[in-house]
This record gives sequence, structure tokens and C-alpha cells, in this order.
Amino acid sequence: MAVYTKVSRPELEKLLNGYELGRLQTMEEILQGVENSNYHITTSSGRYILTLYEKRVKPEDLPFFMALTKHAALKGIPCPLPIADRKGEVLQKLCGRDAAIVRFLEGSMTENITPSHCRQVGEALARFHRATEDFTMRRANALSCSGWERLVLACEARANEAAEDLSAVITSELAYLQKHWPDAAALPQGVIHADLFPDNVFFNGAQLCGLIDFYFSCNDFLAYDFAVCVNSWCFEDEKEFSHDRFDALLGGYESMKPLSEKEREALPLLLRGAALRFLLTRLHDWLNQPPGAIVKVKDPLEYRRKLIFFRENSLQRIQAA
Amino acid sequence: MAVYTKVSRPELEKLLNGYELGRLQTMEEILQGVENSNYHITTSSGRYILTLYEKRVKPEDLPFFMALTKHAALKGIPCPLPIADRKGEVLQKLCGRDAAIVRFLEGSMTENITPSHCRQVGEALARFHRATEDFTMRRANALSCSGWERLVLACEARANEAAEDLSAVITSELAYLQKHWPDAAALPQGVIHADLFPDNVFFNGAQLCGLIDFYFSCNDFLAYDFAVCVNSWCFEDEKEFSHDRFDALLGGYESMKPLSEKEREALPLLLRGAALRFLLTRLHDWLNQPPGAIVKVKDPLEYRRKLIFFRENSLQRIQAA
Repeated sequence: MAVYTKVSRPELEKLLNGYELGRLQTMEEILQGVENSNYHITTSSGRYILTLYEKRVKPEDLPFFMALTKHAALKGIPCPLPIADRKGEVLQKLCGRDAAIVRFLEGSMTENITPSHCRQVGEALARFHRATEDFTMRRANALSCSGWERLVLACEARANEAAEDLSAVITSELAYLQKHWPDAAALPQGVIHADLFPDNVFFNGAQLCGLIDFYFSCNDFLAYDFAVCVNSWCFEDEKEFSHDRFDALLGGYESMKPLSEKEREALPLLLRGAALRFLLTRLHDWLNQPPGAIVKVKDPLEYRRKLIFFRENSLQRIQAA
Repeated sequence: MAVYTKVSRPELEKLLNGYELGRLQTMEEILQGVENSNYHITTSSGRYILTLYEKRVKPEDLPFFMALTKHAALKGIPCPLPIADRKGEVLQKLCGRDAAIVRFLEGSMTENITPSHCRQVGEALARFHRATEDFTMRRANALSCSGWERLVLACEARANEAAEDLSAVITSELAYLQKHWPDAAALPQGVIHADLFPDNVFFNGAQLCGLIDFYFSCNDFLAYDFAVCVNSWCFEDEKEFSHDRFDALLGGYESMKPLSEKEREALPLLLRGAALRFLLTRLHDWLNQPPGAIVKVKDPLEYRRKLIFFRENSLQRIQAA
């Protein structure tokens, strides 16, 4: 992740004085990621990640994210356990930012997605959905159907700077989804990760060993979370839809938590909604790049392609024969 | 650890159905240890230890041990995090035993103790003492001064089977300690590990990375916990007292939590008490070996030697010049 906030060694040592993590040994900036400032730190107690929350994360949401990852980790979901200081507090202030220390997870994202990876991701997502059934805090999804309208309004006037028909694509798609999006009670809801892209899943060799980055987690349709994964895991080179990957992702999910008939029926719509959501946020970032930005803005047109694919192909057509 | 209770793969799979740990991949008996039955298990979520509690662990103490290790792990003490099932329960029943699954810790015990190991153990012990200051559950130490009398009564008649003067040694030592043992309020108390021997500390290369086996943990004098470590870490080949190791252990402890004047004054007595405690339990086990036992009984005379050393040497004499 791009480090926006530089933390000095003495500042970190002062923070660590409030913890029982022992002596600071090493600290190193982590360059991947786009949302927050992250440091890999080692102390005489082990390896940890220090995160400073930059402006995209709302301070009032942090207790939800921290409690959620703790809840999931205590049930064995391989996600980063937040570490409490001597007083029992997870959230800290450092360099004018909200900050937290979580346990380091081994592993790294995969560069070559195979159906085996997809199967494991599907299984892990279902286990996360089951493990959080008794999690009692709630957070609304600001980036669900009701939030897309705001983004379309902010982007439509300049959308054609990215592609000549893009304004028409997003306005027509929004209208379609607003008309057909399921009511809250129509599908099973729960806590969703909402951003389980390949860069948020770690593997150790061939084995899934970590889910990270829960900073979009919220309450929404569980099957929408699955649709986000289909969008992000099931296209080869982000272009060609892979039926094998889709079947593996679905098989993995359903081995732990079968989709209901209604969820299956809604899936084509949810796939389009997930595609639009990432198209809109990427378009918004692309249109609003600050001059000289250090962060590489992701290509919004990747999700235009995915959206068009899901418009044109029914669920029957995307499942392997 | 010696596996007393054999768990079949189907039995373990059935237990895992209640968890969100994914599919069982491998299970393997762990042969080290003497108290409980342990299995190393891997699931699609990672590596874990399954423990079945054998008769030495009282069921009513298990909630204390589980809550304590969770509390410490959440503060970054490198100890095994207990994993909750889907209902949030850590304690289970398996094969007629109480059982629990905890997260696997990397590392292994050291075969060659150096002052650097001792320094890290001292530091980790102090951090454990600090991290549990706000832990609210309590457990009395059944193996403190008041418990030794019971063991002496059970052993003294046959103690000379182990060494010809042993009955006189233990009865005279008990009398001395009973007379001089500090009142509860005389020294700082807290949660102690009470058994932080070299086989309960893991290292990864040169670095301490795990404290395990909290099944003697209880409330008692913090400096008594330190005295247990001196007994178990500071004798070369379990015979020659190492002043360098002692200084390193003390230095590590005091870098996090300086001993008070009163704790320092009491240390010679606490060292003798810790030596007697392990002499008595080992003697008891040695005298009561069941025929054909699979567990190797530890040598009680090792702690007779240590006790005599601490009788004959003051604190000034055991600190390196």
C-alpha cells in the first residue's frame, strides 16, 4: 500500500510502550494497497501489521471493523487478529491518524488464479458468512444500490472521458438495477466482506491462509458478496470469463453454505450490481486523480467489460456445461 | 505428549462440523508432554492443536485456562489462541473427555539453553505478568506452600526409596518454608504461569515465539513464577548453576518489570519453595508409577540438588560478579 503517513521509529516505540508486545525490532513500509498506511513490524513477541487509517475509512466505522475481525479470528477464520494494548484498547492515535496493530498473516496473494484457488475462496467466504451469523454489530452498505445513484450523479457528466458510451451505460444500468434490486427482506442478509478481491486473499503455496482488508465490510445480501467474488476472481486476464473458475467458486461456497433458490435466481442481477459498483468507484477515482498522485488508479473499463458480459449472459450460460 | 485417548478421524470430523475451520486435512498425534492427549490437526483454515484433557486437569479449571490464554493472546502474548465453535463455545466433549482446539504456534523448544534464551524468557514472563493485570478470573495455587504439606505426608514414608536422606530433606525444608513463607499480602500477586519450563517455551531460530501449557496457571506471588523459571532454566545439565543464565533471566524480567525490594529479599526463599514444589510432585509421580506406564517419569533428585544449592547459596552468591 502506498504509505501516506510516515511514522518514525521513536513514534512507533512510544506507541508500543502501551502494549505488551515487547521491544521493537524492525519496521518496514508496505507498498501494496491503496487505502491506508501500513507497516510491517517485528517485536520480541512476533510479527504484526500497523495500520494508520487514511481519509477513506470513517473513524466511526473502525470499532465495527475491529470487532468483526476479532470475532471471525476467534472462530478460526484466517483473518488478522487485532491486538489490544495494556488497557484492552485496540484503536489508537498515531501521527494524527487512527491506528491499530493486528497480527501478521503469512502468505501472499496469488499471481496465477486457478480453479483450486477459486474453490478455496468460495469455501472461505461461506465460512466467513457462517462465522459472523452471531455477530451483533451492524454497518449499512454505503456502496449498495442506494449509494450508486450518488456516484452516477457525480460521474455521469464526465464519464465519456473514459469511454465514449460510458455515461449511457451507467445511467441505463442504474435505472435497471434500481427497478429490479431485491428488497432487503427478499434475500438472506448478513455480514459481508464486500471486497474479497485476489489482493485480499493470501495463499501459502497452494493453500488459502488469509483473508484481509475488511474495511468495506457491512451488512448486505450474502449472495452479493459472492457476486463480488465472481467479478474479481472469474475473469482470465480480467477479460475472458472462466466457467471453470466460476464453477469452482460456486462449488466451494456451496460445500459450506448452499445458495437458496431465491439467491440463485437473483445472482444474475447481483453480478451486474457488483460490476456496476466497482465500475463506479473506479471511474470516480479515475476522474478525480489528484495531480502527481502516487497511487496507480485502477482501470474502470475492466468493470465496464464485466458488466456488459453479465448483461449479455444468463446464469445458465456462465455455468460450465 | 503421550496420547492417552485415541481420536478417530470420523470423530474429529464430526467435532469440526461444529466449527468454521473448514475441512479436516491431516491429524497427527503429538508424542511429547505428559499431561493431556494432543493432536496436531490441519484444516482448510490452517494448523491447530486439539487437546483432550486427561485426569490431571480438573474440568472446573478449564474455563479459567481458556479465558486466560485468550486474554493474553489478544494482548499479543505469543500463546495459543483458543478457537470458538459456531456457537461461540471453546470447550467441547470428545471421546468422553473435555477438549479444546487452539491455534498452532510455530517453533520448537530449545535444546541448548543460552543466556539469550533466558533473557527472552524473563522478558516474556514479565510481559505475561503485565498483560494479565486486568484479568479478572481467579484460581488458587493448589501447589503452593499449603499444598506441599499434603504431598510431604503422602511421600515421606517412602521418600528414602529415591535417596537415603530424602525424607529428612523434605520434612525439614517444609518446616522451614512453612515458618518463613510470605503472607499473601507481603508480595505482589497476580496470574502466574507456574510451569514455564524449557519444554513450554518455543523458539523460532534464536527468537522466542511461543509460551504454551497454561494448565498450572493460578494466582500467586509473581516473583514465585520467576523462581520457577530460575529453577528450570538456570542449571547447566540440570546440575551446575549458571550465573550467566540467572543474570540474563533476571535482566530480561526487570527490563519489563523490575522486582521490588521485598521481592528481591524474598527470592532466596521462593527459589527454595519452587525447588521443593517440583521435588515433591516428581517424587510423588516416581513413587506412584503405574506398572507398564508409557510416560517417562522425571527424576526427582534433580530438584533435590537444586534445593540443596539454593539452601547453601544466598542471592548475592548466585548473581554473577
